[in-house]
Amino acid sequence: MSFDRLIKKIIETKNPSVAGLDPDIMQIPAFIRESAIREYGETFEAAEQMLIVFNTALIDALYDIVPAIKPQAAFYEMYGWHGVRALKYTIDYAKSLGMFVITDAKRGDIGSTMDAYAKGHLGTTKIGRSEHTAFGADALTVNAYLGSDAIAPLSEICKAQDKGVFVLCKTSNKSSGELQDIDVSGRTIYETMGDLCETWGEGTDSEYGYSHIGAVVGATYPQQLSDMRKRLPHTFFLVPGYGAQGGGAADVAGGFDENGLGAIVNSSRGIMYAYKKQGRPEEEFAQAARAEAIRMRDEITSMIGLK
Amino acid sequence: MSFDRLIKKIIETKNPSVAGLDPDIMQIPAFIRESAIREYGETFEAAEQMLIVFNTALIDALYDIVPAIKPQAAFYEMYGWHGVRALKYTIDYAKSLGMFVITDAKRGDIGSTMDAYAKGHLGTTKIGRSEHTAFGADALTVNAYLGSDAIAPLSEICKAQDKGVFVLCKTSNKSSGELQDIDVSGRTIYETMGDLCETWGEGTDSEYGYSHIGAVVGATYPQQLSDMRKRLPHTFFLVPGYGAQGGGAADVAGGFDENGLGAIVNSSRGIMYAYKKQGRPEEEFAQAARAEAIRMRDEITSMIGLK
Repeated sequence: MSFDRLIKKIIETKNPSVAGLDPDIMQIPAFIRESAIREYGETFEAAEQMLIVFNTALIDALYDIVPAIKPQAAFYEMYGWHGVRALKYTIDYAKSLGMFVITDAKRGDIGSTMDAYAKGHLGTTKIGRSEHTAFGADALTVNAYLGSDAIAPLSEICKAQDKGVFVLCKTSNKSSGELQDIDVSGRTIYETMGDLCETWGEGTDSEYGYSHIGAVVGATYPQQLSDMRKRLPHTFFLVPGYGAQGGGAADVAGGFDENGLGAIVNSSRGIMYAYKKQGRPEEEFAQAARAEAIRMRDEITSMIGLK
Repeated sequence: MSFDRLIKKIIETKNPSVAGLDPDIMQIPAFIRESAIREYGETFEAAEQMLIVFNTALIDALYDIVPAIKPQAAFYEMYGWHGVRALKYTIDYAKSLGMFVITDAKRGDIGSTMDAYAKGHLGTTKIGRSEHTAFGADALTVNAYLGSDAIAPLSEICKAQDKGVFVLCKTSNKSSGELQDIDVSGRTIYETMGDLCETWGEGTDSEYGYSHIGAVVGATYPQQLSDMRKRLPHTFFLVPGYGAQGGGAADVAGGFDENGLGAIVNSSRGIMYAYKKQGRPEEEFAQAARAEAIRMRDEITSMIGLK
């Protein structure tokens, strides 16, 4: 009923960052793509194989130094149910190596439907008299445009099964301000959403002071990130926008508390395709990803007080 | 690049309603559940079989009188990739009988990710040199909390492949007002979102005057629905909240224009579980669903000017 499990993992690895796994098969190393197509033809089966080979190698290269992965659901759904099966494989594999898994699906719906998403992505689903795990992530990103109805069923499952959610507050993209920055009597929509996170998380126990309701606040808006850290003392942050989207270590520093906790920073393309930036042969994509993860870790921890 | 295909289907069937397919396997007829468990045990395979048997029978009973189905993604994802495979089966089967398919997934993300959702749910995905259809729905519900970035990639695919999206404006649930009703200088957030729909849909050709950008406006707020109809002359409405959620025919009437067009009303539980309300044996669930769909059609069309 808090983010303690994730925080312990961050302290253990001394690394407040998460590797985003959003693989686009047209961008992954050609030898993985070609080998799968040779075996399965140009099919969704081949795409599934590519996702599994690519993700498995990345997880093997990262699991001892990076506390968490964040698969982005869209990049699996685009390959149909085969892609979704690769998502489940990825979640299971990362968990088997002790990583914390955040499914980035940005789900949001009315109560009865949100209950189905909560069971599917975080909890268990009843079939006959037994319970089964559909995806079994540790945390889920959530869109609360529909209000509290969208959060209540998630909170229940988070409390019962020690899971967490990250509610979208201030996202990292360029047009995020169109709705999120609107000022309502001296308070923006993203601040309003953040205040709701504090309310929804009330009354939960945590060794580190952070409830099970976290918030997404982008690295591309460093002042807002820093203000939100002060405004929301019990809300753990997932910070996208580092790396390929333009955010640097100085930009994310304000998202952390005085102990160097309170946030986890995501990099997806920066880690997945590090071999391109490093000019290394594509066969070394996993080692390149590890090198970039270490560089990112050191850059961020040098700016904050994480011990 | 408009909702003309859906509107033609509505005129052909003289029915502006859509059957929501959100099956919960603990609520469907017991004989379907028990038969699948006998064959596959208490497994996700069994759940997939239940979804397919239930949906196929409903589609068979409805396709000649109901223009569209609206599967709710959560109720498939909760059964893992097997459930997602049943979603694809359902979409394909309904399309093969000429129905228009609206996937209710409420997706919303930054540009590059939204492009992946757009390809997956509406368009096609490239594998090697060929294009493949992951889900292939005709329309998708979308959450635009992230702003225009979330809409641009969808618009592109809608224009190229004659698809549509429904953007969440005023949802049907109780707590929808927490965010959506906030007043910003004389305009609510849901009105702001609706105005954006008009902007995003500008410059599209349509025989009936409605662009490819539609809006979700709930039946449970009839005054707002009626006001939004007048405010957004080029935005086609998907209207949830009829039936089980409490909305009646008088509540939805204001969502239609003077020709009885401009909106499609959804009923999910009211149609799927009609046999319970009608007190008929569960073996007659499909006939009961057809009877309810006819009752709903006649009730709604009696209130509007659809010819």
